[in-house]
Amino acid sequence: MRAVRLQGIKDLRVEEVAAPTLQDPGDALLDVTATAICGADLLPYWGHVPGFEWGTIMGHEFVGVVKEVGPGVSRIKPGDRVVCSSTTSCGVCCSCRRGMASQCENLALFGFSGAYPKLDGGQAERVRIPNADRVLWPLPVEVSDEAGIFVADILSTAFRGVERADVRLGDSVAVVGCGPVGLMTILCARRLAGQVIAVDTVPSRLETARSLGAIPVDASGDAVAQVMALTEGRGAAAVVEAAGGVAALTSSLKMVRGRGTVSVIGAHFEPDFPLDAGLMFANEITLRVSIGSPTDDREQVLDLLRGGVIDPTTIVTHRVSLDDAPEAYKLFEAREATKVVMTP
Amino acid sequence: MRAVRLQGIKDLRVEEVAAPTLQDPGDALLDVTATAICGADLLPYWGHVPGFEWGTIMGHEFVGVVKEVGPGVSRIKPGDRVVCSSTTSCGVCCSCRRGMASQCENLALFGFSGAYPKLDGGQAERVRIPNADRVLWPLPVEVSDEAGIFVADILSTAFRGVERADVRLGDSVAVVGCGPVGLMTILCARRLAGQVIAVDTVPSRLETARSLGAIPVDASGDAVAQVMALTEGRGAAAVVEAAGGVAALTSSLKMVRGRGTVSVIGAHFEPDFPLDAGLMFANEITLRVSIGSPTDDREQVLDLLRGGVIDPTTIVTHRVSLDDAPEAYKLFEAREATKVVMTP
Amino acid sequence: MRAVRLQGIKDLRVEEVAAPTLQDPGDALLDVTATAICGADLLPYWGHVPGFEWGTIMGHEFVGVVKEVGPGVSRIKPGDRVVCSSTTSCGVCCSCRRGMASQCENLALFGFSGAYPKLDGGQAERVRIPNADRVLWPLPVEVSDEAGIFVADILSTAFRGVERADVRLGDSVAVVGCGPVGLMTILCARRLAGQVIAVDTVPSRLETARSLGAIPVDASGDAVAQVMALTEGRGAAAVVEAAGGVAALTSSLKMVRGRGTVSVIGAHFEPDFPLDAGLMFANEITLRVSIGSPTDDREQVLDLLRGGVIDPTTIVTHRVSLDDAPEAYKLFEAREATKVVMTP
Amino acid sequence: MRAVRLQGIKDLRVEEVAAPTLQDPGDALLDVTATAICGADLLPYWGHVPGFEWGTIMGHEFVGVVKEVGPGVSRIKPGDRVVCSSTTSCGVCCSCRRGMASQCENLALFGFSGAYPKLDGGQAERVRIPNADRVLWPLPVEVSDEAGIFVADILSTAFRGVERADVRLGDSVAVVGCGPVGLMTILCARRLAGQVIAVDTVPSRLETARSLGAIPVDASGDAVAQVMALTEGRGAAAVVEAAGGVAALTSSLKMVRGRGTVSVIGAHFEPDFPLDAGLMFANEITLRVSIGSPTDDREQVLDLLRGGVIDPTTIVTHRVSLDDAPEAYKLFEAREATKVVMTP
Repeated sequence: MRAVRLQGIKDLRVEEVAAPTLQDPGDALLDVTATAICGADLLPYWGHVPGFEWGTIMGHEFVGVVKEVGPGVSRIKPGDRVVCSSTTSCGVCCSCRRGMASQCENLALFGFSGAYPKLDGGQAERVRIPNADRVLWPLPVEVSDEAGIFVADILSTAFRGVERADVRLGDSVAVVGCGPVGLMTILCARRLAGQVIAVDTVPSRLETARSLGAIPVDASGDAVAQVMALTEGRGAAAVVEAAGGVAALTSSLKMVRGRGTVSVIGAHFEPDFPLDAGLMFANEITLRVSIGSPTDDREQVLDLLRGGVIDPTTIVTHRVSLDDAPEAYKLFEAREATKVVMTP
Repeated sequence: MRAVRLQGIKDLRVEEVAAPTLQDPGDALLDVTATAICGADLLPYWGHVPGFEWGTIMGHEFVGVVKEVGPGVSRIKPGDRVVCSSTTSCGVCCSCRRGMASQCENLALFGFSGAYPKLDGGQAERVRIPNADRVLWPLPVEVSDEAGIFVADILSTAFRGVERADVRLGDSVAVVGCGPVGLMTILCARRLAGQVIAVDTVPSRLETARSLGAIPVDASGDAVAQVMALTEGRGAAAVVEAAGGVAALTSSLKMVRGRGTVSVIGAHFEPDFPLDAGLMFANEITLRVSIGSPTDDREQVLDLLRGGVIDPTTIVTHRVSLDDAPEAYKLFEAREATKVVMTP
Repeated sequence: MRAVRLQGIKDLRVEEVAAPTLQDPGDALLDVTATAICGADLLPYWGHVPGFEWGTIMGHEFVGVVKEVGPGVSRIKPGDRVVCSSTTSCGVCCSCRRGMASQCENLALFGFSGAYPKLDGGQAERVRIPNADRVLWPLPVEVSDEAGIFVADILSTAFRGVERADVRLGDSVAVVGCGPVGLMTILCARRLAGQVIAVDTVPSRLETARSLGAIPVDASGDAVAQVMALTEGRGAAAVVEAAGGVAALTSSLKMVRGRGTVSVIGAHFEPDFPLDAGLMFANEITLRVSIGSPTDDREQVLDLLRGGVIDPTTIVTHRVSLDDAPEAYKLFEAREATKVVMTP
Repeated sequence: MRAVRLQGIKDLRVEEVAAPTLQDPGDALLDVTATAICGADLLPYWGHVPGFEWGTIMGHEFVGVVKEVGPGVSRIKPGDRVVCSSTTSCGVCCSCRRGMASQCENLALFGFSGAYPKLDGGQAERVRIPNADRVLWPLPVEVSDEAGIFVADILSTAFRGVERADVRLGDSVAVVGCGPVGLMTILCARRLAGQVIAVDTVPSRLETARSLGAIPVDASGDAVAQVMALTEGRGAAAVVEAAGGVAALTSSLKMVRGRGTVSVIGAHFEPDFPLDAGLMFANEITLRVSIGSPTDDREQVLDLLRGGVIDPTTIVTHRVSLDDAPEAYKLFEAREATKVVMTP
């Protein structure tokens, strides 16, 4: 079968490899029908993942049709059209039993190695799914393959980020960062919030944010002052930081009102982020980091899609063949593509 | 000044009375600009409120312009355009200090006597407002007088009912009862829910519910079965009972899924409601009653209005003069009017 | 092996039966070291469980040592000293994935049939454990076999009842019913509460409650008035109803303060419990029913035991051989024994 | 009357000054019966409070008997024995109405000026109390003056820190810092936790922590490793940081398990605290800062005292006359006194 493998830094190849087979009783094999590139895919692509094994098949955002299941699988059967969680989940560790699959003690991320145990991903014609009963989820007929992809990671991440932001219906919510995850966050926050304030510096992203119902704030200027002006000087009740990086989180903490929550879903690796602890103290801020967890949240997320309440596919800018993956990564890396969907 | 006074069962009169004056340092006087009839107004109208004093000026849903304030008022000033909470709030009892104004130990309801200490209401040209700093709230320019009226009671009640229903974003929510409060509930629930299921028997109400984005279910048939069919047999994650009465609450408990919440905002006075305790037990149901509390929630509620996220005025069917109050009550009692707004 | 089987109403026999064997990959076999009689065991004993199959081995409270595990078991190994949850848990249904094992769609209760799929229990020398990775839990060395038994059901139930009572540290908590579950509830509530008020009519139970740190209130008199007197006339912030039956729940609703929670863990089967809906409405009460869920909560519960914070074994009144089960059930039924532990 | 006034850096004097009088309708005058020195008093003492006015009367921890009340006071009357919240609370701003008095938009701190509007404190014979209905609270007969002092600030702060730490009953809780606030935190956490781990470097403090039921961990060694060893390698479910400073918070973040909460009540003023954002991200940590709020929480806190559940007076090491204040501050500054109570 064909698969997208990373063979070195920025050395992405579509190669013919042996199709996977069932290994454990809980395994399933999935014929991929659509898959997308995620910002996190750029980390190994850029060589930023220590221990990554060249040759790993990429991709943790994909949907497909179940081809075969092991004898220990009870909830999924061949022929099911499903979305796959971006990560595995053992179901028996302390974290999984408490509904915190993102902290699973045996977690693996599809399309990664090094940071986690190696697990080939879904940018391929077929993929092996460990513990399929917890990791695969049937797509309702109302949800298209393309919409379903978003459940695997970024829409679930956005959903989690909003849920953990302690937002009350009607609150003002600021979303810092309007990349793919930020735009998904706006879609979710738009439901709960009285107003959603979208903060970014890229005009096209701000324009998309506006089209999704947010009030755009250009962070090239004084974004904090603009958020204050929009919230009677109090700050937003909650801020979802969906950008990553020092500048985004720093301004997020300044935009939130007293006793408010800054919910972080942007990736952070800084060992010494310069936190304004005095500000945190004076304003009794809650700073909370979350990693998306489709295993835990996908029923809600799918219900949002099924009811037609939100439509994540509006941010898909490119639809290409799996064979075009190397070119698609380049477009995505250059931010010329917001979201790329590939079909085998 | 003119005022709508109840002089006996169904004996409503528009009379000339002395205008109120400041009595306590925390008082304000309000010139009413718009006021509405609430379902709760029918209780004294029908003679169902023990101890009600004939002659009490009716009405707890009103907006206006501040005429004068006492020396103890600091947050409100003459000229402010404000909405008034339906109830007073002392601000110092245990309940008020905890943000539970609806359980204020010194609570009075505008336009009522008997059940609470007598307090003349807002179906008049002018009204005295005790403890104005906690009870009056400025209307943002974006919110019209007519929209503001809904903050006084039924929109805040609906908001509270949804907030206390433990709804997660994307959940299925059933709303039982599509009168004015139920329709306000649909407006709020529509934000959070993947799907809102509206249950009633009156075709016109169901049609309005549909126009607000809900899935109508005719309770003339088997409403529980229809809700189950819409929720994969599991029941709604939350049910908001906005009707009152035995039938509505009984079916609500059957419509909710395991560990779900039935949030009651319909009025109940049954001393021996026949509760299916076995069902409550098997499904680990939470049954929670709430009374609206604009004092606590109006910022969120106003933010929903200000952002244009919801528009409660769509349910206003009649706009009349205060002088037409007797006729308006008759229409409202006959359910020929969904919501009546009166201007002095 | 020997096993306690129910062969008819009150017809309990200790019989020689074939030892169980592994059936599914996720199974384990457990050599029971200690087991107890639960109030719920009396339901089939009295013939109150429709469809119960005579011959079912009784018991859902037991600890033991793992004898053998199937190939699908990863977290438990032979030789482990473990406590077994009273119920099974599939780990893949919606409820299990959300950390709500008590609503597992594939739930079975050890020692029961009829109400649930038949599953032989632990009042035997050996027992088969389906889905052992989720159902068995290692006992820390600090926790004795006898203390561990309580984790299987009644201590976990009490824990859950207290957790879902919305108690804040320092609150006044009333516990209605001082049988074994009520006494466990007092142990848990005593940690959180400023004062625990224990309500019952049996002097010996009230005396035990007092010895555990609660303030005893004799419900032969006016229990509600006494609770009011102890709470400055406001009522308890939370009431845990651990008795079952109409009287207990009725008085519980009268004892709770405005916006308070009545958390029910007593069993209820009344199809038409006479609920004072007017009281619920006026006081905005939350009425919440919970079933214990050791699968979800055992880490916390075990940590309470391990830290020596609570000692449930103080309520064990009888320690006998499994051969004495018929006599032990009679003592327990007659309330002459508070808690009976049997060893094979 | 006599009063303790700060006339310059470390220049504390007991002086004869004019007794305060009623100024506003909501004022009360309080005859102080006992007052204590708080760590926060050292900030102006050391000259660390910009804008502090020399001559301000010190002290925000005090109890007394009400001498006189203004016409706007309804809940408090002369002769009442009361504790005073460390801060004022207006009761009408957004924060106060939501039960967040620590974020009151009109907040003043007794005994401070500069950082807040000047308000003379309670290290004096008499003190004026603005908005007395919200700021004073009657002491139950079971609570001594000396115990009541702790409600004014540090016990309420500790209570808040524990409440906002998202602790479940039975969880392992680490308390970093065993000064007066940390010891109060241990008293509160000991109720909820399966085990409380107390972290400090001072042997005498650790010994006191042990006597209060905590497991002492000497931070001179590798405190993180010791906490891990005590929690099966997972880390504490919650950490309450009661020390302030970079080292304490840094290690707190390393001690908490995945999805756990670090609740900060230690004071922080660092503009660029070096936060390990990568650790926050990987472990999905919640970092939440809280300021004590006796106005909101004192009922719970007083109930803990009244029930005899905790006894904060065990940490009082010195009881002196108000005249000895200058010497007492020196002992407290040198950490030779854990807690000093002064009587006029």
